[in-house]
Amino acid sequence: MTGVSVDEAMRRANELAARGLGTTSPNPVVGCVLLDADGQVVGEGFHAYAGGPHAEIVALAQAGERARGGTAVITLEPCNHTGRTGPCSTALVSAGLARVVIAVEDPDPVAKGGADTLRAAGIRVDLGVRADEAEAGNIAWLTSIRRGRPYVIWKYAATLDGRSAAADGTSMWITSEAARMDVHALRATVDAVIAGIGTVLADDPRLTARNLRDGSLAIRQPLRVVVDSSGRTPADAQVRDGAARTWIATGAEVGVDPAGRVDLAALLDALHTRGIRAALLEGGPRLAGAFLAAGLVDRVVAYLAPRLLGAGPTALVDAGVHTITEAIDLDVTDVTQFGPDLRITAVPRKREG
Amino acid sequence: MTGVSVDEAMRRANELAARGLGTTSPNPVVGCVLLDADGQVVGEGFHAYAGGPHAEIVALAQAGERARGGTAVITLEPCNHTGRTGPCSTALVSAGLARVVIAVEDPDPVAKGGADTLRAAGIRVDLGVRADEAEAGNIAWLTSIRRGRPYVIWKYAATLDGRSAAADGTSMWITSEAARMDVHALRATVDAVIAGIGTVLADDPRLTARNLRDGSLAIRQPLRVVVDSSGRTPADAQVRDGAARTWIATGAEVGVDPAGRVDLAALLDALHTRGIRAALLEGGPRLAGAFLAAGLVDRVVAYLAPRLLGAGPTALVDAGVHTITEAIDLDVTDVTQFGPDLRITAVPRKREG
Repeated sequence: MTGVSVDEAMRRANELAARGLGTTSPNPVVGCVLLDADGQVVGEGFHAYAGGPHAEIVALAQAGERARGGTAVITLEPCNHTGRTGPCSTALVSAGLARVVIAVEDPDPVAKGGADTLRAAGIRVDLGVRADEAEAGNIAWLTSIRRGRPYVIWKYAATLDGRSAAADGTSMWITSEAARMDVHALRATVDAVIAGIGTVLADDPRLTARNLRDGSLAIRQPLRVVVDSSGRTPADAQVRDGAARTWIATGAEVGVDPAGRVDLAALLDALHTRGIRAALLEGGPRLAGAFLAAGLVDRVVAYLAPRLLGAGPTALVDAGVHTITEAIDLDVTDVTQFGPDLRITAVPRKREG
Repeated sequence: MTGVSVDEAMRRANELAARGLGTTSPNPVVGCVLLDADGQVVGEGFHAYAGGPHAEIVALAQAGERARGGTAVITLEPCNHTGRTGPCSTALVSAGLARVVIAVEDPDPVAKGGADTLRAAGIRVDLGVRADEAEAGNIAWLTSIRRGRPYVIWKYAATLDGRSAAADGTSMWITSEAARMDVHALRATVDAVIAGIGTVLADDPRLTARNLRDGSLAIRQPLRVVVDSSGRTPADAQVRDGAARTWIATGAEVGVDPAGRVDLAALLDALHTRGIRAALLEGGPRLAGAFLAAGLVDRVVAYLAPRLLGAGPTALVDAGVHTITEAIDLDVTDVTQFGPDLRITAVPRKREG
């Protein structure tokens, strides 16, 4: 029986890691595959939820003594600190591994240093195998740790001509049920959903992650955040119901910018402190404009309905752009059809230099 | 040697027909494959340009006596009238064919009746083989004949948030060179390009089909049409240069609607009389809105740049829609990437009932 290559093992580890998406926050997703000295798979694990065992610990428990002299293939540098669980670096040393292969370094100042601990114990450590894949799989968490603020996804729904409602303000529904179901699936993968007070007053949304067919709530609900400078969220707003936690972020609590609006950097700082790693920004158009103008959007998800209105509110207002050369450039990373609608995913283009 | 099936011959005939796209107007594209009594291909032809031989005549010339007793497979019902060439129906009868298979009936009241002539001569006639394919290949011409007006393609370029220019009016360029080259290729397939006086005054476009790399003009240029109610096109406007024919369509010449704007139905009527089968509507936003409100758009081609502006003119204005249930619904038929940009092609959804 021939063994598995380290590259193939990392492909598998990335797949395992992805199973934790949506349930590990504020922790990253991590996958681990253990190979014995002959390259046979003797253990597999992934991090399933915060407070639960790390991927390495699950895999080591499976492998037992067969891990000795083998190779651990892990999507993220093993943690080096004692949090809710003990340090994985020490566990890998104790298990007698000869080599540890890591896709991406841990940027977390609290947890990093695992590779050094392993090397100090005489273990061969290789970094960077299938790193792009692992980076993409953990993009929200990695971005959040590197920037010290949540990874922000701006989601909007509009017609092909960029309108988010008709001239008379009606907007139910711009997009199809298939597209709206995908929005609920997206909500279920983030830690917070952010909306402006204008949207709350106009649409009275619930901002929960639901099954649109039967109305049932997802088990894990994102924190609902209303950006509400002067505290105008009505007492009976649906966003205040008991279906999920809610934070009415007022200017008095968070701080305001010179225009008297909630300071967005301070808002994200507060969310980061609360353990929010990924946040979904759901409007309205001016709040989205303010986030974009401040460079605080990491991904754009546009649901475009193949319909034309020719009048009515636009999906985006005041993004700080005055002339064409200042346009906020994106790179399209995915186009998928949901019913009649298109979902276009894009990320801000990296500025050169 | 086994023969070719009628279905396979029609697939081939549709392919042949497409070779004429862009050069046969005001005639349709037509392809023809002749099979002998054993099903062997003995002749092939397509209509290449108006005034040139019809597809059937080309194929019959190739086949000669081998056509006798065989089958003609043709994408469109053979013409029955003497125009610049003699009737194809008579030529097929003279050639001694036993059977004629046709994809789509000729809706042209002047030319139709070919199938009847064939049947009267004792030839077996079958209609409807691979009709959808042939219909799609001839969609502009068929629509034009059926509706008595040109097939209108509305093309626009906008950002992902639906803006056609920035707040200060700058718009060069919203889309990439790759997308703009495709626009020029599209212009080369139509008989007329239509723009409003607002666009001519703002951008001074040339509206020719050019190679953007070296500036060379396509051999065949569409008629340039400026919709200019009160005759304000400047004497030195580029659209008046000698690169192509131009028609300044004024209210005085065409007639006006109650709002004093050029009557669009009358405009299309005049273009149809001039032999225009396919027209490309290139803006501005209010002219597009007027065409859409009147139900005069047959295809929408949107070039969407993955950029955000949040301010500036929108791609579409006043399409006669006031509330969400009146939205003009489309069906997406194609999404193609050109450089960083997306080209989304869509057709108005057929209303039920």
